[in-house]
Amino acid sequence: MTQINRQILLASRPQGPVTPDNFKLVETPLAPLADGEVRVRNHYLSLDPYMRGRMNDSKSYAVPQPLDEVMIGGTVGEIVESKHPKFAVGEKVVGMFGWQEYGTSNGKGLNKVDDTHVPLSAYLGAVGMTGVTAWYGLNRIIAPKAGETVVVSAASGAVGSVVGQLAKLAGCRAIGIAGGADKCRYVVDSLGFDACVDYKAGNLYQDLKAATPDGVDGYFDNVGGDVLDVTLARMNAFGRIALCGMIAGYDGEPLPMKRPALLLTQRLLVQGFIVSEHMEVWPEALGQLGTLVAQKKLHYRETIADGLENAPEAFMGLLKGKNFGKQLVKLV
Amino acid sequence: MTQINRQILLASRPQGPVTPDNFKLVETPLAPLADGEVRVRNHYLSLDPYMRGRMNDSKSYAVPQPLDEVMIGGTVGEIVESKHPKFAVGEKVVGMFGWQEYGTSNGKGLNKVDDTHVPLSAYLGAVGMTGVTAWYGLNRIIAPKAGETVVVSAASGAVGSVVGQLAKLAGCRAIGIAGGADKCRYVVDSLGFDACVDYKAGNLYQDLKAATPDGVDGYFDNVGGDVLDVTLARMNAFGRIALCGMIAGYDGEPLPMKRPALLLTQRLLVQGFIVSEHMEVWPEALGQLGTLVAQKKLHYRETIADGLENAPEAFMGLLKGKNFGKQLVKLV
Repeated sequence: MTQINRQILLASRPQGPVTPDNFKLVETPLAPLADGEVRVRNHYLSLDPYMRGRMNDSKSYAVPQPLDEVMIGGTVGEIVESKHPKFAVGEKVVGMFGWQEYGTSNGKGLNKVDDTHVPLSAYLGAVGMTGVTAWYGLNRIIAPKAGETVVVSAASGAVGSVVGQLAKLAGCRAIGIAGGADKCRYVVDSLGFDACVDYKAGNLYQDLKAATPDGVDGYFDNVGGDVLDVTLARMNAFGRIALCGMIAGYDGEPLPMKRPALLLTQRLLVQGFIVSEHMEVWPEALGQLGTLVAQKKLHYRETIADGLENAPEAFMGLLKGKNFGKQLVKLV
Repeated sequence: MTQINRQILLASRPQGPVTPDNFKLVETPLAPLADGEVRVRNHYLSLDPYMRGRMNDSKSYAVPQPLDEVMIGGTVGEIVESKHPKFAVGEKVVGMFGWQEYGTSNGKGLNKVDDTHVPLSAYLGAVGMTGVTAWYGLNRIIAPKAGETVVVSAASGAVGSVVGQLAKLAGCRAIGIAGGADKCRYVVDSLGFDACVDYKAGNLYQDLKAATPDGVDGYFDNVGGDVLDVTLARMNAFGRIALCGMIAGYDGEPLPMKRPALLLTQRLLVQGFIVSEHMEVWPEALGQLGTLVAQKKLHYRETIADGLENAPEAFMGLLKGKNFGKQLVKLV
């Protein structure tokens, strides 16, 4: 009996906000495994803001997601069939199989993971690309000294939550910016940030000023737009800004930066980055992050959608900030 | 007979564009020289865009110029009287005596210069702060590799002209942006840039695109505003932008950056800087620049106003781009 693989393809590119009809769910029979191949049953799919950028046909930002192909994405799963000498049935692997239930591979790009002390799903979050993104921007761009103030936007999110906790572990004052009282409470009470500013409360500049009496030395930006403008106005001389995401500007018109002259007058460093272009740091970063998670010194939260068919809705929710922590889709 | 020192003070802070009544010319009797002091007859005063920033009462940008005090500024001159063991009458020195005809000092901050092979005025320009500014932004921020494309705005100006010539010496393609056909001709024909785009011709993006077929790897920005926006749109991935000046935004409303998302999508580095905060590079930079000027491998042009009383008008002209090359005031 031929097994069926359910897959979600990019059906069309968004004109403005992402809509359900940008996606198409298809059922594809799985071809028999060839020699040297391995088959993975994906347990979790990671949903991440970068996917929104890939949906555009922009020549300048990474590689666009091709139309009518399986949406790109990180996955973690279990090997269910193997004709590859280095992989055995039952082993757990992280890969980039995208939005589908099964993945077939010659082994390239697959990394075995051990879920004895670290939950399998964490390899898509705090101990995966998400965690390394936080680690790279904080350690390699902001490079904070103990006692400095580090601000991170989308602070309750998968990346932001790690940034602030790593900043605290480095002896910094960690300030989050998040949307809503619940998220802010979580950021302070559960993650241990020194303070969190609710941008939805309508008083962002004054609230951020109150939370950063000594100004801001490092800013890890996940959102752009107004939040970036307001934080810029609090930057100290020689501050560093790691630009990781501009979710605020993904849909529709480009958002301006209101006062770029601050970059000059405060002698700021701004560096945009994509973590997949810095593979050299992954082993060191993943080693540290895995240890911290196993020791329960690094906390995270997940929002889990159930079933591949719910991935598009979960992704649209992510772009609107409806998730709380790492957004995953459970595929088994 | 008591000697008179003519001085120009900051009389008021500009509300919008600088006006003549922001300045006041006064005549002050020179006090007799004390032991350990040296008196300098200033020959040239340097006028620079950074002075505009100092005229504002901004807490965040360097130190504001105090009201009713002599305007800040670099000077070069000759020692006319000395009660200091290390300085002799007739020696030439560079200092920061500001907008006045005589300077009195305990020797601190005075540097002797040799005008045998390098003209005295050059120590305020290509072999002075101006040249080091170009050197620092190019070598320490943009750090171009041979074959890369480097763009500089205000390319015929004191800083820009050095940036492009150093970029050419480093094996780069050097593209200038300047205002008007005369300046552009000078940049290409006399300074040896590969091309120069006239922003006043009204077709900046298309003209810059034509001049940078391989995109832009490094941008040395002296002006901000539209020119920055347009050049951003031509930046290659991993490009570097040295922010040196935002003359376009000094007067009036802050100018926005239209598409900051490019900083992320192109993974750009932006670094604002003030060269006086990087004194560690001055000896190396001045050594190289002095050698290049003496060997006539580094060219520059000066616009010289005659007499201290004409400094305000010359400064207002500088802010409007009326000067051609380094703006100086001749004081003897």
